[in-house]
Amino acid sequence: MIKPPQQLAEKLGLHFNDPGLFITALTHRSKGAKNNERLEFLGDSILGFVIAHKLYDLFPEADEGTLSRLRASLVNQTTLATIAREHHIGDYLVLGSGELKSGGYRRDSILSDALESIMGALLKDQDIETCRQWILQLFSDKLNQLSLDNWSKDPKTLLQELMQARQLELPEYTLLSMSGLAHQQTFKVSCRISMIKETTIATGISRKKAEQAAAEQMLALLKKETK
Amino acid sequence: MIKPPQQLAEKLGLHFNDPGLFITALTHRSKGAKNNERLEFLGDSILGFVIAHKLYDLFPEADEGTLSRLRASLVNQTTLATIAREHHIGDYLVLGSGELKSGGYRRDSILSDALESIMGALLKDQDIETCRQWILQLFSDKLNQLSLDNWSKDPKTLLQELMQARQLELPEYTLLSMSGLAHQQTFKVSCRISMIKETTIATGISRKKAEQAAAEQMLALLKKETK
Repeated sequence: MIKPPQQLAEKLGLHFNDPGLFITALTHRSKGAKNNERLEFLGDSILGFVIAHKLYDLFPEADEGTLSRLRASLVNQTTLATIAREHHIGDYLVLGSGELKSGGYRRDSILSDALESIMGALLKDQDIETCRQWILQLFSDKLNQLSLDNWSKDPKTLLQELMQARQLELPEYTLLSMSGLAHQQTFKVSCRISMIKETTIATGISRKKAEQAAAEQMLALLKKETK
Repeated sequence: MIKPPQQLAEKLGLHFNDPGLFITALTHRSKGAKNNERLEFLGDSILGFVIAHKLYDLFPEADEGTLSRLRASLVNQTTLATIAREHHIGDYLVLGSGELKSGGYRRDSILSDALESIMGALLKDQDIETCRQWILQLFSDKLNQLSLDNWSKDPKTLLQELMQARQLELPEYTLLSMSGLAHQQTFKVSCRISMIKETTIATGISRKKAEQAAAEQMLALLKKETK
């Protein structure tokens, strides 16, 4: 039995001028053509922006790589599904019969998509600023708990610590090539770890920078694999 | 000889309360620690949002996949570099001596990053709405030229047409597995083309949906390869 959407809107502190938009945001594609996929696209884009903007202000010392990692730690399916569960959004989802039977209202992807869709619906129903404030409120605990300590480490250090924590061999970096004249050289380096088959390859204006870039790509690969 | 940034700001129709922020936006990391990498992070995020928002309104009939493809056709390094060149942004970049000698002011990545950084600087110097309006103005020609015709096609059709245009073999789809009970089955399908080595694999609630998803992944791979 789906609970009335109006109840959820109230709990979330939202009032929709067009309640139909909110219902669409809760409607999974398994239910039919009028579903939340377009609103999810919209919500995802404003969420990414609002969090990036906030992180930029919160951490004036953080470089771009750190800001990206901080954002990825907040804007991902697992975190969004957790927030959705805290607000019992699963109880209000409109699902097709197949998804209903297989427990779709508990699935990370469906919960995360619905939360982003609500953001999209709020943006369309009201305006950018209202939506931005609501997103910041939704993430306020997580934003307050953030600390640069775990994110300002460079990618090589992070990757090494990750391997150590899992008692695996340390990452292996290999210089593949050097090109260009002195003072303008480009270094190409590969990074390999025992956990996955893929090798990452990156270039940089120094061997160290190339290694950092290869380590960063490896971290991104790992994040994708473990998602 | 770098031209005065004030000249560029005027040409772009911008007035910065903090001209230093605009100079930072034009400064490549090869110049030193105070560069545009943080502003680029910020600019990239508002650009993605503003274009997504606009496309959502412009194409009420477009599904989420089509909106994503439309956005990717506008927000990518090549398009951004083209816009940057139209405004002669390369003439105003502040580069380190290495990049200067090797012609960094002509490089797509450096031009594209600088344009996004200017968006970030405008957002910080002024507000979301001013920045949004400027981005929309910058993209107005490209937005006006967009038509759903080329983008609303489903991924399988797009991929097939792409192969035909290059006189290559048609994509090959293979059903790898089926699982689950009747009416709740999951189909796993691979897609292979002669152009690249990788195979994409996707699942779906029907064989056709799995094939579409595998084709979509292949299109994404191709886009990355040809970038």
